Amino acid sequence: MRIITIGREYGSGGRQLGKLLAEKLNIPCYDKEVIREIAKLQGVSEERIRKITTTDIRGMYSATVGRSFSAQFMYDKKAMDVFSSQETVLKSLAEKGDCVIVGRSADIILREYKPLNIFVFADKKTKLERCKQRSNAGLTDKQLLKKMKKIDRDRKVNRRVIADGDWGKKENYHLLVNTSNVEIPSIVDGLAEFAKGWFSKHGQE
Amino acid sequence: MRIITIGREYGSGGRQLGKLLAEKLNIPCYDKEVIREIAKLQGVSEERIRKITTTDIRGMYSATVGRSFSAQFMYDKKAMDVFSSQETVLKSLAEKGDCVIVGRSADIILREYKPLNIFVFADKKTKLERCKQRSNAGLTDKQLLKKMKKIDRDRKVNRRVIADGDWGKKENYHLLVNTSNVEIPSIVDGLAEFAKGWFSKHGQE
Repeated sequence: MRIITIGREYGSGGRQLGKLLAEKLNIPCYDKEVIREIAKLQGVSEERIRKITTTDIRGMYSATVGRSFSAQFMYDKKAMDVFSSQETVLKSLAEKGDCVIVGRSADIILREYKPLNIFVFADKKTKLERCKQRSNAGLTDKQLLKKMKKIDRDRKVNRRVIADGDWGKKENYHLLVNTSNVEIPSIVDGLAEFAKGWFSKHGQE
Repeated sequence: MRIITIGREYGSGGRQLGKLLAEKLNIPCYDKEVIREIAKLQGVSEERIRKITTTDIRGMYSATVGRSFSAQFMYDKKAMDVFSSQETVLKSLAEKGDCVIVGRSADIILREYKPLNIFVFADKKTKLERCKQRSNAGLTDKQLLKKMKKIDRDRKVNRRVIADGDWGKKENYHLLVNTSNVEIPSIVDGLAEFAKGWFSKHGQE
């Protein structure tokens, strides 16, 4: 089984990278599919799931004090259900076979599948440019930078709910790719080759 | 011009990786050659050069106070000459053509050549195992760990003498490779392919 997980800073091009890498390796790439599946399982809207899994969950509790995220987390039944469904969905996708999974803390949740964990990051300037090309119409640079910062902070906090390892810290990944000024397609072949070599010796049989 | 620089934690296998990567790309790999050339230019032993360039240079001055490394550095004529020769040697090697350079802060010194900067790291256990296979006979695990820690700390400090950017911080590299439990040869082809793709779009013409 070859599972590749992609953690990424907002605007780093990680989603595009995951998609192209999966195409190159001829395996599926799961991204928004995960949220869709969780929504089905939970019988609520994708938007609601997105909110629960991507918002700083500390903000969900009025009595937020201290740093015991998981304790607070325990109080919200719906959030617990959603995170549990996320695990179920990710594992069932992994069981289907080789794939690339973008985000969702899949590196932690699928640990037992010995995934190749890649983290994609970039400098502020590059991320800002990439975000402008997306559906961020009407936002000023300042607003966009604020949005980028918030999303990444939420990712960091949310990761702590399910794992000790810090989001974006190099020790928690196998390969970290800086996409500052980089055209994503130019590095896909190399990463695909890297993955092949790595799995030939390391991944789960 | 394709210059690949390899920064690495002691015991991470970075040197082996650099050598194999250069072989795969059919370009030279410079490692100890740099020290040899500096020694020639300065007319002193390689050992002396190694000491000056790899020891925490703060330790060279009895009056070490504060954090102004470069100011203290200015007081030692020999160290200045050696670091200046290091720059001369690295640039003359780069001018010769495509190559891999291990260590020596080449990523900073050769910035104008737009090198692909790779950082190689690993967990303590893996590094300890690799170090044991080297010429570290007679050292206990504890002594080896202390040695590893000291060497990496010196690298970190020395980098600050010539550059602002922190050693080992992901933002300062293009690609970071975690070699924990990894057989170095298994990832060389992928990195070579990555380098080719990267230079096709990014490196200096």
